[in-house]
Amino acid sequence: MKIYRVTFLPEEKSIEVKEGSTIAEAAHRADLFINNLCGGEGVCGACRVKVIKGKAGADEHTAAVFSQKEIAKGFVLACQTEIHGNLEIEIPPESRLEEEQIMTGENTSLKGPEVSFLPFKPIVRKIFVELPQPSLEDNITDIERMSRELRRKIGWHSYEISLNCLQNLSDNLRDHDWKVTATVVKDKDLYRIQKIEPLNTTTRNYGMAIDVGTTTVVAQLIDLRRGKVLGVDGIHNMQAQYGEDVILRMIYACDKNGLHLLHQAIIKNINSLVETLAGRNNISPEEINAIVAAGNTTMSHFLLCLTPCSIRLEPYVPTADIYPQIPAKEIGIRISPQGILETVPSVASYVGGDIVAGVMSCGIADHSEVRGLIDIGTNGEIAIGNNEWLVCCSASAGPAFEGGGTRCGMRATKGAIEKLEILDGKPKYQTIGNASPRGVCGSGLIDCIYALVKNRIIGSDGKFNREIGDAGLIFEDGVPQYIIAHPDETETGDPIVITEPDIDNLIKSKGAVFAAIKSLVDYIGLSFDQLESFYVAGGFGNYLNINNAIAIGLLPDIPQEKIKFIGNSSLTGARMALLSEKAYEKCLTISKSMTNIELSNYQPFMDAYVAALFLPHTDRKLFPSIDY
Amino acid sequence: MKIYRVTFLPEEKSIEVKEGSTIAEAAHRADLFINNLCGGEGVCGACRVKVIKGKAGADEHTAAVFSQKEIAKGFVLACQTEIHGNLEIEIPPESRLEEEQIMTGENTSLKGPEVSFLPFKPIVRKIFVELPQPSLEDNITDIERMSRELRRKIGWHSYEISLNCLQNLSDNLRDHDWKVTATVVKDKDLYRIQKIEPLNTTTRNYGMAIDVGTTTVVAQLIDLRRGKVLGVDGIHNMQAQYGEDVILRMIYACDKNGLHLLHQAIIKNINSLVETLAGRNNISPEEINAIVAAGNTTMSHFLLCLTPCSIRLEPYVPTADIYPQIPAKEIGIRISPQGILETVPSVASYVGGDIVAGVMSCGIADHSEVRGLIDIGTNGEIAIGNNEWLVCCSASAGPAFEGGGTRCGMRATKGAIEKLEILDGKPKYQTIGNASPRGVCGSGLIDCIYALVKNRIIGSDGKFNREIGDAGLIFEDGVPQYIIAHPDETETGDPIVITEPDIDNLIKSKGAVFAAIKSLVDYIGLSFDQLESFYVAGGFGNYLNINNAIAIGLLPDIPQEKIKFIGNSSLTGARMALLSEKAYEKCLTISKSMTNIELSNYQPFMDAYVAALFLPHTDRKLFPSIDY
Repeated sequence: MKIYRVTFLPEEKSIEVKEGSTIAEAAHRADLFINNLCGGEGVCGACRVKVIKGKAGADEHTAAVFSQKEIAKGFVLACQTEIHGNLEIEIPPESRLEEEQIMTGENTSLKGPEVSFLPFKPIVRKIFVELPQPSLEDNITDIERMSRELRRKIGWHSYEISLNCLQNLSDNLRDHDWKVTATVVKDKDLYRIQKIEPLNTTTRNYGMAIDVGTTTVVAQLIDLRRGKVLGVDGIHNMQAQYGEDVILRMIYACDKNGLHLLHQAIIKNINSLVETLAGRNNISPEEINAIVAAGNTTMSHFLLCLTPCSIRLEPYVPTADIYPQIPAKEIGIRISPQGILETVPSVASYVGGDIVAGVMSCGIADHSEVRGLIDIGTNGEIAIGNNEWLVCCSASAGPAFEGGGTRCGMRATKGAIEKLEILDGKPKYQTIGNASPRGVCGSGLIDCIYALVKNRIIGSDGKFNREIGDAGLIFEDGVPQYIIAHPDETETGDPIVITEPDIDNLIKSKGAVFAAIKSLVDYIGLSFDQLESFYVAGGFGNYLNINNAIAIGLLPDIPQEKIKFIGNSSLTGARMALLSEKAYEKCLTISKSMTNIELSNYQPFMDAYVAALFLPHTDRKLFPSIDY
Repeated sequence: MKIYRVTFLPEEKSIEVKEGSTIAEAAHRADLFINNLCGGEGVCGACRVKVIKGKAGADEHTAAVFSQKEIAKGFVLACQTEIHGNLEIEIPPESRLEEEQIMTGENTSLKGPEVSFLPFKPIVRKIFVELPQPSLEDNITDIERMSRELRRKIGWHSYEISLNCLQNLSDNLRDHDWKVTATVVKDKDLYRIQKIEPLNTTTRNYGMAIDVGTTTVVAQLIDLRRGKVLGVDGIHNMQAQYGEDVILRMIYACDKNGLHLLHQAIIKNINSLVETLAGRNNISPEEINAIVAAGNTTMSHFLLCLTPCSIRLEPYVPTADIYPQIPAKEIGIRISPQGILETVPSVASYVGGDIVAGVMSCGIADHSEVRGLIDIGTNGEIAIGNNEWLVCCSASAGPAFEGGGTRCGMRATKGAIEKLEILDGKPKYQTIGNASPRGVCGSGLIDCIYALVKNRIIGSDGKFNREIGDAGLIFEDGVPQYIIAHPDETETGDPIVITEPDIDNLIKSKGAVFAAIKSLVDYIGLSFDQLESFYVAGGFGNYLNINNAIAIGLLPDIPQEKIKFIGNSSLTGARMALLSEKAYEKCLTISKSMTNIELSNYQPFMDAYVAALFLPHTDRKLFPSIDY
């Protein structure tokens, strides 16, 4: 394979690429982003660049899009032109993509080779067309005239159109001088004309990406024309009133006939997020044309009002793993009357669309190197693989890392202690928003456990070292506990403590997560050091001390730089699927190709779990770098 | 190309076929019809036949469907097994198709080589499945389990499913011992699961074929399991109150804002036909799962409430020629809540789905020989072509052949004189239903003109020969007219007459039709005798005297046996499209490939029209066989 050097002007940024790569791919690798309306199909001409030095042949697309004069000047289509020699390329300003359109993960460290190039091609696009008026020589039907122009502009060849659009088409065209805007939506293998509006309305096209979490529902409002995130908001999942976790909610839905209530709760959540985010940005909910939602399998079932009852019972069978794209109004979501809801596909009963979106968002399925993702919430879901295979599993971690099940635990919101160390025998902490502390969130709890074991206040079994005589260690009703924040520091005036039972819970949680990772790696026949990267997602807030997570035995002991905390990868993936058809297609491929390993009856997992109920682990050889 | 002889038992019917034909095709050519559930995809096993003599290899499909024992006995799949030698085949009783399922035209003379083999595969099928219960080893989702079984049974690979079906799937399966019936509908390139019902409901699956005519709406109720026509009914198009013909109705729709009224009128028509036909056959309208409707372009627009306003104005542009398949309830048609309406695609403003259905139904596009179809109503639409090209045109014929525009004209219903000759100076007629005469329908008028000119009561210019002194010729208010039925014979007690202005109108009508045929044939560069067959469709009732139609110059003077009256070919085509996916696909292909010649500004048509205003024609050389 030959390697060539491409230099982009005016930045003079150079990059080496393999022979046969396109100029667009080279630019992407150089972190320079080029405009693209047709999604790389070589028909829109928006990605024109100028060849300054070197040879890059004018192909059929170039000839169709550019004039002879432009071709003579060296203009080519970046998406169509392959590299077969060293090149110097100028990217003219009109071909530059606004930064917001760049399709990468939430975390900028993910930009680059880990996520393959994803063309900006939202699931719902608005296309303005000016049609030539019909004549006796050209009297094809209105819809054929419309789609002929759409073919020219965005290069798709077959379409579906709703009756409603057709009914208004004739008047829309003739009353507005043959200038209309078509809203085009991609649904699995086909395109549908969703709406036809008079004149040019392309500047107003919005979408929402939603992570439907068991505890929290988080949404981003997106400008689909520019790919820009306009706002983000999160609220408690209102289903909590019917049960704290998915199991309780399934029981409520199935044994107490409560499916509709649970369904309506999540719809209320979404409508509330729509209103808030639309209101804040001065747009009408009716201008939102698409929602992409990702959630675990149970949440996806509740969202679509599908019976979830067989999910929790052996043999753990969901109703569906690939969900139909539906008109959002069909389930009472109040956006555009023609707006659609796309739900990211799941893998199995306990590995949902949130994981599929996460795996897609960090590019695990894009490369030959083996990478892993763990999403830590009430469940820990793990996926490991590369561009040839993907394996996943899920283990119940309990609510400890989300702030449940411990005396002073809380979610990663304002006032939560998210960072902690013990210096000179005294705890030093940092809270979210620098507010007075109200509790400890997941990342704070991890830091806390590490600080306690490191300072020998607790032993490797998680029990307090009763002889140490640390001033922070007190007993209340015989329960040993460590004071993290004294009453005079906290918002409520109550002390914030971590108790021995809390630590016990946390060890069980981290044990389950680690055992799941270990079982999966063993199942594949890998060792930890064969992982190229390991991504950690979850509701830890903005911060996770990777070192400490390794030190308590939650994450495997691999070089710290290989582990990357990526925040809410479900939301990131949903947004990417909203902004790039290709990203949604990848989700579909991932969901179909991922093999789920059922841990519930898997003896090696049970054994690994018991072995992991220790800090960092009963087998110290697994944690060679840990020195406490 | 080698030819082999295949003999079918027990009939001992023999036929010669080309090498490589399938046994199913050979049987079809021998007028023996073989069962077929999967539409020839080799997966259902319903077309098993036994090879008695000769060799026919067991292919992969055969091996998958039959046991070793059956293969040893000589069983093969008729749809998959190619013929490469002389064969003797036994068709066992279970593989025989009930006669009603045979996919041929209305008129039995169309059976045979003119219509290619169309597998019986209704647009909506019910498939009963018994699913294996899930286990830990086989815990795919409910919908995947369902579609796996459907793949096995009917061999289709991807599907869409409505949210509503998904929502009930889990309970439907688990409450009924994993036995359910899926209603599967074909929509353009994809299959959709339309409905899932508990247990086996395959015996109840109905559809309707509708010819939406400007004057009359005719419907057939079809048993989709057996392909049997259960009943037929026709009613006046209720739109008549808003205008007699399509032009007046378009004006009402567009200039008087009456589109919704016209739309609702046709929906009322359809609902009334649904109720009548369902009621008569003791089925519930909710058991009707599909309607296929064919009509002219304007009627199709009214049916779907599409703006028809640009159809009648130059450059004659319809909103659409290919119509979306829609849920019937979307436009208020009361059949199954999940039932669909498919509208046969059109070609141009004045060549609609009725002609496309007609061309398909008589197999014009199936063969290399050139054939023609004329559908005579208020408009005369003509299509000519073969399996490589199709050309069509339309001419306004006026209402004469449908019983309008003449003093005593009427539609082809009870009491209409449909047949007439003048014997010994006296008119002898036959009425529909042998009732007392009430008027004269199209076929009767043609006979009448011929009888008058043949007996020299009128001249070739259509004027009465005032000197002849025929007893039937009278003058009323100076208008010469001929008495067909005297007052004592008729239902009303008024005489039935044909006037000189009536004759003038009829000559204009036949002139327009003939001129259109002539212009089209000339345009293609053919002569009439190059036409292999010429099909005549239209509302003439059950009868049309082809000889007389030629003799008055309505139809070209080609050997009578080449001209076939085929009745309502629009209805036949709609029924075929309902009963065979392939037939609908053919309609789509025909609509896309047919070239429309616009006659309204076409000088050769004008010239041909003027030349045709004579009996039989100003150019006698065009009618060499006519001797009056």
